[in-house]
Amino acid sequence: MRKIEYRALQSVFKSGDLSEDIFFLTKGEVGIFLPDNNTKDPNFIIGENEIFGEMGVIEDELRMGEARCMTACEILAVSKKEFDDKVSQSDLFVRGVLRILSYRLRTLQKNR
Amino acid sequence: MRKIEYRALQSVFKSGDLSEDIFFLTKGEVGIFLPDNNTKDPNFIIGENEIFGEMGVIEDELRMGEARCMTACEILAVSKKEFDDKVSQSDLFVRGVLRILSYRLRTLQKNR
Repeated sequence: MRKIEYRALQSVFKSGDLSEDIFFLTKGEVGIFLPDNNTKDPNFIIGENEIFGEMGVIEDELRMGEARCMTACEILAVSKKEFDDKVSQSDLFVRGVLRILSYRLRTLQKNR
Repeated sequence: MRKIEYRALQSVFKSGDLSEDIFFLTKGEVGIFLPDNNTKDPNFIIGENEIFGEMGVIEDELRMGEARCMTACEILAVSKKEFDDKVSQSDLFVRGVLRILSYRLRTLQKNR
């Protein structure tokens, strides 16, 4: 787990990047911009103590949008390997429910 | 956590029941029948070492379909309270990802 500091307007990741980390925002505000959004207004706002960037890691797919710091930010980054280790140390039921939610979400999104 | 034995054709839960437990099938085969299914063929099959019945518990909603034992079965039942305790003892990231997946799934399903 690494702690990273960003300046306002810096990108945490951009559309098409490899999905290597899950992020936990400890300070500041991050905007999520979908690929067709060319404005300065993000589609979603991530606030303090929220997680983002988990989908690409769980689904093992490229980043779908851009995460851009709206203010100076402090962010904890957990690698895919670290996350997988945390999951494998979790309770059997927690692990099973995580897997099934992820599977259902993937199935629903592909059938849209 | 309780271990329950079922005979073939017994129901674990029926559509409209309160969602009180998450189930882990340790032995046998369970069929999931959606409400409009009046045949003897389930819409989904749950196999050994699979989890079912988690959605109603996580979303705090009534059972949407019937879970019927296709063979004699052994099933572990974990109550909502037990599951919540397991989740609260999990790692921060695992917990956060579980919450966000559940939220996304609910949002996607409601917008269908």
